[in-house]
Amino acid sequence: MSKEEVIILDCSLSPFCNRVKIALSEKGVSYESKEEDLFGSKGGKSELLLKSNPIYKKVPVLLHNGKPLNESSIIVSYIDETWPSSSPLLPSSPYERAQARFWIDYIDKKVFDVGSKIWRSNGEEQEEAKKELIEILKQLEEALGDKDFFGGEKFGIVDVIAIPFTSWFYAYEKVGNFKVEECCPKFSAWEKRCLQKDTVSSVLPCPDKIYNFITSMRKNLGLE
Amino acid sequence: MSKEEVIILDCSLSPFCNRVKIALSEKGVSYESKEEDLFGSKGGKSELLLKSNPIYKKVPVLLHNGKPLNESSIIVSYIDETWPSSSPLLPSSPYERAQARFWIDYIDKKVFDVGSKIWRSNGEEQEEAKKELIEILKQLEEALGDKDFFGGEKFGIVDVIAIPFTSWFYAYEKVGNFKVEECCPKFSAWEKRCLQKDTVSSVLPCPDKIYNFITSMRKNLGLE
Repeated sequence: MSKEEVIILDCSLSPFCNRVKIALSEKGVSYESKEEDLFGSKGGKSELLLKSNPIYKKVPVLLHNGKPLNESSIIVSYIDETWPSSSPLLPSSPYERAQARFWIDYIDKKVFDVGSKIWRSNGEEQEEAKKELIEILKQLEEALGDKDFFGGEKFGIVDVIAIPFTSWFYAYEKVGNFKVEECCPKFSAWEKRCLQKDTVSSVLPCPDKIYNFITSMRKNLGLE
Repeated sequence: MSKEEVIILDCSLSPFCNRVKIALSEKGVSYESKEEDLFGSKGGKSELLLKSNPIYKKVPVLLHNGKPLNESSIIVSYIDETWPSSSPLLPSSPYERAQARFWIDYIDKKVFDVGSKIWRSNGEEQEEAKKELIEILKQLEEALGDKDFFGGEKFGIVDVIAIPFTSWFYAYEKVGNFKVEECCPKFSAWEKRCLQKDTVSSVLPCPDKIYNFITSMRKNLGLE
């Protein structure tokens, strides 16, 4: 494994990048992170990013021995298939795999967009978005059921996909004046379980950093 | 295989249902199709649909020995993993699998929504949507390259996902007054190759039916 070159074109605050890094950590794969300048303050996106993701021009990109991979959920599946020997992330039965993929897709379609609505608005619109986020999290609590993790006893692919969003919740809560834990205690308990893992806590940014980022974005948007 | 119960909650015009039926046909799996009343003219969606897809309440649902599966691309992967012995739809190398998944996701995000914009509008908006569709198809032509099918010489998963949309193109062309073949000849040649397969042609509806459906929808929307 030592001869493999694994580079991630990265943004330390991005939940989409962080799921890729958590997956690599779960597999014990060392990687080099290259932070991209997404907001143009230091010259903008790298040529390597534009070349490696010509369609979306977005992070994360995984470069595995020079070959580029795009789209974070697809990259996480690739990581699971490429380094299968250690802990598998996807369950083994086709039916459980389909269920995991259903929740990955649900999370990808919903969580970040609704979270962004919370901090990109005020008043009525923000209230609506808060309600929507809580409904989504309640749906996820139902999927979790009484299990420790989405796939059962072990931290698996749905957990990898979902956990990085929780770094953003502190900012959503401060901006929207609510507490996820009060509405969705089971979800919060799951979050704490995940954060006990080094592979997760070593990757996720401090929620304060995200709060500062969001506050400055809100100022730019004239919302504060 | 004869004891397995495979039911699809179906809509014969839906490209999302048709990709599931093509995948089953490719695997030689017999299935029973139950046409759903999506537009409420005969009492609306069945209880079975509402129970089997409680989150989206949409077709297709695959019921495999009573177990429900949702979301058409996920169902197609499930079919490929459940009946792996015959022709595999996904390529075998993790990198090629990731590339196939990238194009599946691209197609899912783009084609149907842009197509709907064409027939749900007139004038400027329709012109924009036509341009957008052609750009998407040109991107797909690039992904196709000089290969017969998206994965190479054999009809594979990206072909299964993409081909049902082409039944709708005749209606887009008539409504929007353009020809896909003139703008994207390589894409049209691929379409013809796919339609030569019984597993495809036996499933896809006659484009006239879709044109009639769209015409009546446009009348309802006051667009004609």
